[in-house]
Amino acid sequence: MTAPIRIAPSILSADFAKLGEEVRAIDAAGADWIHCDVMDGHFVPNISFGPDVLKAIRPHTAKFFDVHLMIAPVDPYVEAFAKAGADLISFHVEAGAHSHRTVQAIKAQGKQAGIVLNPGTPESAIEPLLGDLDLILLMSVNPGFGGQSFICSVVEKIARVRALIGERPIALEVDGGITPETAPLAVKAGADVLVAGSAAFKGGPANYAANIAAIRKAAETARGEWV
Amino acid sequence: MTAPIRIAPSILSADFAKLGEEVRAIDAAGADWIHCDVMDGHFVPNISFGPDVLKAIRPHTAKFFDVHLMIAPVDPYVEAFAKAGADLISFHVEAGAHSHRTVQAIKAQGKQAGIVLNPGTPESAIEPLLGDLDLILLMSVNPGFGGQSFICSVVEKIARVRALIGERPIALEVDGGITPETAPLAVKAGADVLVAGSAAFKGGPANYAANIAAIRKAAETARGEWV
Amino acid sequence: MTAPIRIAPSILSADFAKLGEEVRAIDAAGADWIHCDVMDGHFVPNISFGPDVLKAIRPHTAKFFDVHLMIAPVDPYVEAFAKAGADLISFHVEAGAHSHRTVQAIKAQGKQAGIVLNPGTPESAIEPLLGDLDLILLMSVNPGFGGQSFICSVVEKIARVRALIGERPIALEVDGGITPETAPLAVKAGADVLVAGSAAFKGGPANYAANIAAIRKAAETARGEWV
Amino acid sequence: MTAPIRIAPSILSADFAKLGEEVRAIDAAGADWIHCDVMDGHFVPNISFGPDVLKAIRPHTAKFFDVHLMIAPVDPYVEAFAKAGADLISFHVEAGAHSHRTVQAIKAQGKQAGIVLNPGTPESAIEPLLGDLDLILLMSVNPGFGGQSFICSVVEKIARVRALIGERPIALEVDGGITPETAPLAVKAGADVLVAGSAAFKGGPANYAANIAAIRKAAETARGEWV
Amino acid sequence: MTAPIRIAPSILSADFAKLGEEVRAIDAAGADWIHCDVMDGHFVPNISFGPDVLKAIRPHTAKFFDVHLMIAPVDPYVEAFAKAGADLISFHVEAGAHSHRTVQAIKAQGKQAGIVLNPGTPESAIEPLLGDLDLILLMSVNPGFGGQSFICSVVEKIARVRALIGERPIALEVDGGITPETAPLAVKAGADVLVAGSAAFKGGPANYAANIAAIRKAAETARGEWV
Amino acid sequence: MTAPIRIAPSILSADFAKLGEEVRAIDAAGADWIHCDVMDGHFVPNISFGPDVLKAIRPHTAKFFDVHLMIAPVDPYVEAFAKAGADLISFHVEAGAHSHRTVQAIKAQGKQAGIVLNPGTPESAIEPLLGDLDLILLMSVNPGFGGQSFICSVVEKIARVRALIGERPIALEVDGGITPETAPLAVKAGADVLVAGSAAFKGGPANYAANIAAIRKAAETARGEWV
Repeated sequence: MTAPIRIAPSILSADFAKLGEEVRAIDAAGADWIHCDVMDGHFVPNISFGPDVLKAIRPHTAKFFDVHLMIAPVDPYVEAFAKAGADLISFHVEAGAHSHRTVQAIKAQGKQAGIVLNPGTPESAIEPLLGDLDLILLMSVNPGFGGQSFICSVVEKIARVRALIGERPIALEVDGGITPETAPLAVKAGADVLVAGSAAFKGGPANYAANIAAIRKAAETARGEWV
Repeated sequence: MTAPIRIAPSILSADFAKLGEEVRAIDAAGADWIHCDVMDGHFVPNISFGPDVLKAIRPHTAKFFDVHLMIAPVDPYVEAFAKAGADLISFHVEAGAHSHRTVQAIKAQGKQAGIVLNPGTPESAIEPLLGDLDLILLMSVNPGFGGQSFICSVVEKIARVRALIGERPIALEVDGGITPETAPLAVKAGADVLVAGSAAFKGGPANYAANIAAIRKAAETARGEWV
Repeated sequence: MTAPIRIAPSILSADFAKLGEEVRAIDAAGADWIHCDVMDGHFVPNISFGPDVLKAIRPHTAKFFDVHLMIAPVDPYVEAFAKAGADLISFHVEAGAHSHRTVQAIKAQGKQAGIVLNPGTPESAIEPLLGDLDLILLMSVNPGFGGQSFICSVVEKIARVRALIGERPIALEVDGGITPETAPLAVKAGADVLVAGSAAFKGGPANYAANIAAIRKAAETARGEWV
Repeated sequence: MTAPIRIAPSILSADFAKLGEEVRAIDAAGADWIHCDVMDGHFVPNISFGPDVLKAIRPHTAKFFDVHLMIAPVDPYVEAFAKAGADLISFHVEAGAHSHRTVQAIKAQGKQAGIVLNPGTPESAIEPLLGDLDLILLMSVNPGFGGQSFICSVVEKIARVRALIGERPIALEVDGGITPETAPLAVKAGADVLVAGSAAFKGGPANYAANIAAIRKAAETARGEWV
Repeated sequence: MTAPIRIAPSILSADFAKLGEEVRAIDAAGADWIHCDVMDGHFVPNISFGPDVLKAIRPHTAKFFDVHLMIAPVDPYVEAFAKAGADLISFHVEAGAHSHRTVQAIKAQGKQAGIVLNPGTPESAIEPLLGDLDLILLMSVNPGFGGQSFICSVVEKIARVRALIGERPIALEVDGGITPETAPLAVKAGADVLVAGSAAFKGGPANYAANIAAIRKAAETARGEWV
Repeated sequence: MTAPIRIAPSILSADFAKLGEEVRAIDAAGADWIHCDVMDGHFVPNISFGPDVLKAIRPHTAKFFDVHLMIAPVDPYVEAFAKAGADLISFHVEAGAHSHRTVQAIKAQGKQAGIVLNPGTPESAIEPLLGDLDLILLMSVNPGFGGQSFICSVVEKIARVRALIGERPIALEVDGGITPETAPLAVKAGADVLVAGSAAFKGGPANYAANIAAIRKAAETARGEWV
């Protein structure tokens, strides 16, 4: 039995001057999860926002907060993001030498744990963690900036990771360049959570519902669920 | 001739869910400058926000953006913060080996340049830069988190830095624990720009004007300007 | 032909106030190897001890010193640990970019070389080194502190590494949470050297022989050697 | 159809006091490529030379400049080496977390992109990049110094990487200890570009042609091309 | 009124195989403080020991534990050393950008706080901290190894720091190459706590009392206290 | 008694394709010292060259090799540069926490030791080292690239450092933007060694003698030595 397709708009593409309102609007527009892209200017060449921004928007929605940490080191910040309202915390396998310890730290906070792979990282890197993960996130752009194009060679990795997952209850998320055109590629290969940045937020709040619906329809059609 | 007292509320204490609105409210309430505290989770043990947040709030006010970078390294990010709307960029003298180069990089962007000293850093550290600076910022708390108490031993350093500045057109800013109670200490010692976090934003927008007025009155009274 | 089971008590669980005496006691109690856990507070979040401690205890036993370096970088310290009395030096594959060079450096000191994998690290990481190793150490806890529980998912990795080793004369060691209850899991999967911390040293010197015997018996029974 | 054998003398073994002359001589002696070994004293324990040296020798030959960056981080220097005259830029997969981004950065400069593996690094590390590479360079010594001996266990990795490459138009280069004696091992396993240091430059300019011819003959004979 | 001379033997020169016994012997021999040299292999090129060694020897003496951290970063380890039994924790001003924060962290643990200066560091570096310190430690060798010779040019710095201290209740400690010959130089210049390594522990326990007495006599004579 | 003016052309501005020839030409043209700028791409944002380049040019001149290390860390490379032919090794005070140890390391190689200050670094940083130095180098540009303009505010620092030096036999060198126009400023303030890059090498070998003579004449005239 497959999990339903979930659309996770990334607030990196929202208007940072009114994040609460943006989050309420994207929630109302049908977002399944809220994807939060945390960047520290060291693991990636950009600084986005930290735990206090998360905490501020937490009261504006009850949706699942999917917090993607593009930071290194990770461990000193796990507690802060957990307390700020994360439901799931994912981190990069490339971010340090002790990935299993980080998974333990996230679980010790009572949160779901995910691991992220850059486009250049092989899936063999995470095999020992498969029994402990709630989510695997495959980057389909190089992380750091919004608005990049989907890297097609990641499609094969999605398929290989889906096979690795097997029957385990692990969500398979894809992040980077997801649009109604690329979503079917990701879904057919096995993804069930789609991060959408510009494609979700383009055109302003009046378009959010249509934006999300378009991605969802493309994704579900690709899966044969749309009738 | 002394410069007027300027109050620079720090948006670190604003509601991050509605930053545009907060900035408009604090502008209307009499803020002279908008103080932006950028933290990277490496130079200080917290991540706050980066250039895209600055860019988002820039259209909401015409006030002077005083951007305080608590990051290291600094140079790779100077252009991003300049383009995001900073009017002045200040950085920590402790953040690297090439402070003069960073001042050059900020000026090359057409922006004012400031340097920041932690509470434990002696003013001798910045003497060679005095001819090139627009602002010196003395931390009166250890940077990283809002809501800390003013470190009184910094008052003497304020006085020594004021003496160092002499007739040069350099603003002398103090950041950390500024309230109507501590502002007079800073001002009497020679400060002319006061960052205010919790003391400016406490009680919500209805109180911003009164909050700022109280700090300003205390500061100007200490200077003998209030009649 | 399989190697005999060797029990390697870790002095991390000994009384640091009388290490010489502890080492003599654990030697007399039947320890096969003395396992020395070196931590630098950077590769792992704890500092344990360095080469001078090793040198001090070296005269107290003739047993094989199995030195596990939880440090990064490794190369600047290889000579110091070799001279301090190590018989085998193992280091983490996660500790740097030049693992083969480190193996060369250890061999150049006339010592046996081992490589260590954290629980989250796949065995594919060490394949190119198989021809040069004397030992592979699989962590069954995340390194840094004594007294943690055995991570069961490592058992499958032990089996996979045993298969990788094939006929090569490489010892397969497991470290973390080894007790008479967990030792059989490790041994059945293919381990032949068992690090024991608390389980070896608990109850004081009067119990060391019984502690070691219990682990050995459980391990050998699991292998079908006990009669 | 296999690519022709190319010999790439490394200027690390040339006389740095007359690099222009050396490059002209090795070009005239039959070098196919000029291999440039850049070391930063951080990724490897030696400093060799940077972009200005490259730029200075660029006018002395029209041969293909194969620039091997033994530096970390890589991205801040890609543009400088591209502008200095590199035709191909290769970097170590061990040098950072974002190898795919670096490949993009090299291609954005209009240059060919290669990736390098240390002797201890498994080929699985680069699988996701195979579709984007022009060259794979396998180190057969640990990088940092000239004059080391060929590590024979790398031969099997050459063969495995050749199999991984399949029909893709990716050159397979080997660097370290290549001589007429070791070249056949590399070539039989699948290498088609051979870096030669001491073996190319030994004996001074009068011998360069013979040196290169000897390596080429050994290599082509191993391939069955020599008649 | 001057403080009495205190002799602080450094356990770095003790026999690490029987630290408890050594500490009891040096206590009985007249040590005023026990000096504990913690090295992490990063701030200095040696690893000595960490908090668990401290904790193990704590029950063996009631003397004041003067813990000298030659580590960077400092803050993540303050709590561990406080809990392990430190009475005073000193750290290097060169170890980071936030020295005042570290002093706060030590005081928050209820411990005395000291700061250490390498031989090459000017005393101006610590001026802003003078109001918050319990001890200033001036290195008279470059830290990392025992058995080095006293650097005479430090004598002038001792005198300048003594002048800086003025009436403040701050102990002035000197560490490195202290013997009955050099102790008078340090004391005349203003030191009142003398770390002694080899000079305290040489010749084994039978000589400890005489060793300490000789240093004390030389020091007190230099001060004119000896009758 | 003042030292004679010495002109130290920096080979950073020479033609790297024929360094031996360039060094012979600049020697014949009247260079007093040969200034070698070593950059590692980490302490400064450029890589220049390392010890093997030095070793290659060493046989081409008997002049004094003044090696300026713009690298961090310094200590691991002191021996290599000493053996490559340096007569004096200078390093940046900003490059690490243990400047006195580095001076010891250079002296232990039998070489003269110098220390370098960036434009933003106060001279107080080196006061404890004055008794151990052979040279102080003040940067009058931010290090990393040739061809920059002299920073005039450094002139006052030259004068202050000259006063600090007093009667000590320490050379005072200035590096960055030195031309016949700026040399007098440096010399009047107290400099006696002038690094010249573009100003020495401009126009090719035929002009080297005139270039150096012009700088020397301007410098000596400023001192009142020219008749």
